[in-house]
Amino acid sequence: MKKILPRDRLSQAGPPSPVVLATCVDRDGNPNIITLGMFMNVSIDPPMVCIGVAPERYSHDLIKEQGEFAVNVPTTEIIDEMHRCGITSGRDGDKFVSTGLTPIPAQRIRSPLIKECYGHLECRVVQAHICGDHTLFVGEVVAASVDEEVLENGRLVLTKAKPVIQKNWSYHTVKLP
Amino acid sequence: MKKILPRDRLSQAGPPSPVVLATCVDRDGNPNIITLGMFMNVSIDPPMVCIGVAPERYSHDLIKEQGEFAVNVPTTEIIDEMHRCGITSGRDGDKFVSTGLTPIPAQRIRSPLIKECYGHLECRVVQAHICGDHTLFVGEVVAASVDEEVLENGRLVLTKAKPVIQKNWSYHTVKLP
Repeated sequence: MKKILPRDRLSQAGPPSPVVLATCVDRDGNPNIITLGMFMNVSIDPPMVCIGVAPERYSHDLIKEQGEFAVNVPTTEIIDEMHRCGITSGRDGDKFVSTGLTPIPAQRIRSPLIKECYGHLECRVVQAHICGDHTLFVGEVVAASVDEEVLENGRLVLTKAKPVIQKNWSYHTVKLP
Repeated sequence: MKKILPRDRLSQAGPPSPVVLATCVDRDGNPNIITLGMFMNVSIDPPMVCIGVAPERYSHDLIKEQGEFAVNVPTTEIIDEMHRCGITSGRDGDKFVSTGLTPIPAQRIRSPLIKECYGHLECRVVQAHICGDHTLFVGEVVAASVDEEVLENGRLVLTKAKPVIQKNWSYHTVKLP
């Protein structure tokens, strides 16, 4: 039976989403990490992705002002650290320090990457749109890197990578049907 | 070891995405179905979602001209039908007929919903942005419905819903870590 949902429950009819950790920097190069449930690819050539960030989040103005961010893809092995990045603010301190996650240099942007994540998309902001209570940042992917161990014939194997999928911030991973 | 990816392989460093079936109609109410790997939530209040559709797809102009679409969330039980909707064009015939999927009326829009999907988001287009080789349609969710069987205490339970997650169009579903 189909059940009609009230306005505050509409999202229960939608699909789950991947969880990503976006990294960014302030003017002085101090890094931050933000846990995001809003990510999608939007263009293949040129490669472009979208993320949704609420204006009140500390990372919002960093991304807007510095015009760049990296998308780091966590695995189930760092669910605790990933979760902590989502419930604390970069205003209160360096999340690399508080979580123990390891910053490594990116190829083409100033924002550091998170070593413990399996994949990294380095992005320059090319569009920003206000969509309701979030800002939609569109980034062109200017470089990318990935853990060799999760590739087979140059293609990502999800069951090796163990990405995190969420709905209502209940964390899952993937399996073959 | 981190491996630097060439430009045509950048997406292998990214997360997987949910697969959704968007439905839309032409001026006369004839329906179409398009399989999409580009979907995300972008606003909680008002509820808004994004989809990415390539301009050459038959559904692109239908969504643009009629200003509406529905997002239907398939389960692993209809992977074959879902896949077929992605490799055929609505220009060549009615995909509800060719796949056997069942159209049911929406509450607030003209586009039909797909009965075999577990969830349905009825959307009115509020923004459209050209992002590289796709158009990003932003839709306000004006109504939603879901199969009662996949809810527990009003919340979606992913392991009951069995949504489809893909990378390189290899289909997976979810499990607890």
